[in-house]
Amino acid sequence: MTRDDARALDRADPLARHRNAFALPEGVIYLDGNSLGPLPRAVLPASDDTLQRRWGERLIRSWNEGWIDAPQRLGAAIAPLIGAGPHEVIVGDTTSTHLFKAIVAALRRDPARRTVVSEAGNFPTDLHIAEGAVGCVPGARLKVVARDALADALDDDTALLLLTHVHYKTAERFDLADWTARAHAAGALVLWDFSHSVGAVPIDVAAAGVDLAVGCTYKYLNGGPGAPAFLYVAERWQAALANPVSGWMGHAEPFAFEDSYRPAAGMRRWLVGTPSILAMASLEAALAIWADVDQAALARKSAALFTILADAGAAAGLPCITPADPAARGSHISFRHPQAYAVTQALIARGVIGDFRAPDVLRLGLTPLYLSHEDVWRAGELLRTVIADAAWRDPAYATRLAVT
Amino acid sequence: MTRDDARALDRADPLARHRNAFALPEGVIYLDGNSLGPLPRAVLPASDDTLQRRWGERLIRSWNEGWIDAPQRLGAAIAPLIGAGPHEVIVGDTTSTHLFKAIVAALRRDPARRTVVSEAGNFPTDLHIAEGAVGCVPGARLKVVARDALADALDDDTALLLLTHVHYKTAERFDLADWTARAHAAGALVLWDFSHSVGAVPIDVAAAGVDLAVGCTYKYLNGGPGAPAFLYVAERWQAALANPVSGWMGHAEPFAFEDSYRPAAGMRRWLVGTPSILAMASLEAALAIWADVDQAALARKSAALFTILADAGAAAGLPCITPADPAARGSHISFRHPQAYAVTQALIARGVIGDFRAPDVLRLGLTPLYLSHEDVWRAGELLRTVIADAAWRDPAYATRLAVT
Repeated sequence: MTRDDARALDRADPLARHRNAFALPEGVIYLDGNSLGPLPRAVLPASDDTLQRRWGERLIRSWNEGWIDAPQRLGAAIAPLIGAGPHEVIVGDTTSTHLFKAIVAALRRDPARRTVVSEAGNFPTDLHIAEGAVGCVPGARLKVVARDALADALDDDTALLLLTHVHYKTAERFDLADWTARAHAAGALVLWDFSHSVGAVPIDVAAAGVDLAVGCTYKYLNGGPGAPAFLYVAERWQAALANPVSGWMGHAEPFAFEDSYRPAAGMRRWLVGTPSILAMASLEAALAIWADVDQAALARKSAALFTILADAGAAAGLPCITPADPAARGSHISFRHPQAYAVTQALIARGVIGDFRAPDVLRLGLTPLYLSHEDVWRAGELLRTVIADAAWRDPAYATRLAVT
Repeated sequence: MTRDDARALDRADPLARHRNAFALPEGVIYLDGNSLGPLPRAVLPASDDTLQRRWGERLIRSWNEGWIDAPQRLGAAIAPLIGAGPHEVIVGDTTSTHLFKAIVAALRRDPARRTVVSEAGNFPTDLHIAEGAVGCVPGARLKVVARDALADALDDDTALLLLTHVHYKTAERFDLADWTARAHAAGALVLWDFSHSVGAVPIDVAAAGVDLAVGCTYKYLNGGPGAPAFLYVAERWQAALANPVSGWMGHAEPFAFEDSYRPAAGMRRWLVGTPSILAMASLEAALAIWADVDQAALARKSAALFTILADAGAAAGLPCITPADPAARGSHISFRHPQAYAVTQALIARGVIGDFRAPDVLRLGLTPLYLSHEDVWRAGELLRTVIADAAWRDPAYATRLAVT
């Protein structure tokens, strides 16, 4: 591919018009939107309004003027991105806290089933939180097995299959419907973590029959650093499952100030404490972009961007650990290199921001809303240059710890 | 007291200079800073810098440029307000989530002790969360008793005494050292909720020997709606107690991406997921005000403001349910009235924002950093007018539900 080829693709790109919705710094090709999405321009006036008018002027009255319903309102905005009903998603807390609540709740559904099954190498907080959650339910245990042993690990003691839809390192994607059906065939529930797939690939929880899901909003949804996460509970489970972190915002009548906890109906019972309204306001502005995004076009462009970088990586001799089949991956591409950290730093020095994942992975995010084909083509050229020039051998690139 | 008397007090007020640190709306006397503190002016440039430069320009690199340490840095800023060491406080999550973590951890310290003791009428989330937390520890139970039965409820089965320092409704204040000593005498730990006392009254956890504490930052600390809460764990307990909500941010090496959870040393183990950086940035700017506040002057002015409103309430014939002794209360004043909701609305219509607490309490916050004596004197005059004119009988004032 040449630069002109990439430009031709950009001219025909139906998603190109979304780029201007983001404030992208000059001179940077940002291939880390899968870790922290960039700033949507609409966040600035929304934040200003929340600070100056809603907080500054309206003060406490703003709780009655939209704040109290923000968790449900933002949940309804995310719902179409995962194929859920607007009353099946709520926003607040962190992905980790949502995981804890959902795992404990799932374990309590059937006392005869005591095992949570998950994948070795799953995103760490999923496994760490599962460790903590099983410690809160008598007799419960966590079974962590390799991907190819998952099917055999499901049995009549399995309460929950806990999987991350798209792998944070390799971008491998589980078949949502297939693995949901496998869990159900074993009599278990399934809890999906969509952190690396929501906004990156099409998701349909209703068609797949998903029971529970969580997801991060600061990656492909561009909600801002540490933006509040979402929780999905299928309507059929909403009355049966209970939130173990039973805070007042999940009470049936929070402002009745009763001593005893009575869970709210529907998704509101999954709320815990008072969510950050400043964080919610930023996320709400970021979510508005999605009302207008064609998910099929998104998937097509993600695949086109992947091909450009995959070709560049192949030309540079880098082994790619992301599946070649678009249906079997998310929207990032990962290469192995023995000095992946130094390579990442050398790319950053040339204006290409990707990230490193220990011990030897260079991870590059492909976010079709604001990356052009030409951006990704240039990144590929720079990747080839860095590898060919051995720029990554410069010890200066290995001195700082990457944190993402 | 006359308006001139109030103005004379304002001229001599060493805290008057802090008023300009806040953006207060024209025509409003804000007596609800105990529920949602007003906007500190410094939040605006801090938020703008976080959005435009740190998020917008620096993007993922900002995690290495201060974000990752925000929970500890903000904890260290709060520590002096409660008499803690800078390494004993951390910020993130909600008060409710911190309560959950601390209660479960305290129950696990000694398997021979199974009871959490708390007060009937405590702030609801404290009791609701305690209900959920005892459900996560085999054999544990929650004993909720009236204030005058608390002393007798402590026995050799008590694992934890859970108290709110200043009562959200009446403003009654527990003697911190005395009740901490009572818990210890019974062999129990104590967990204090400082939500209605931090920034309102002097607190010294070190002198009192407090084990655990949590607190809200959106009331007297003015961190913004739903601002992240803090958790205090005395250094002597930091190695022994473990966080049941064991998320990756509390791992010893979060970016080593290990399957197994290993808790970080010190306070970092109490982190769960990625905290909202937008919320943290606002709170950090708000906390900077406190570096320069004389806590003794704060307590003196709170007492003076209380006297002005107490006298006005007495003149209006309203029973006051807040203790007359300044050492036995926080920094708000509550009156009973059979139509307290309508009275609250009638005051709001006259520019005095306080709040209603079911079933019959009018609650008015006295926040010495930004209220003048004249403000509070005028609020007292308006309170007398509303009661005398029976303006609260207007049915228009009883139609909207107050939410705070």
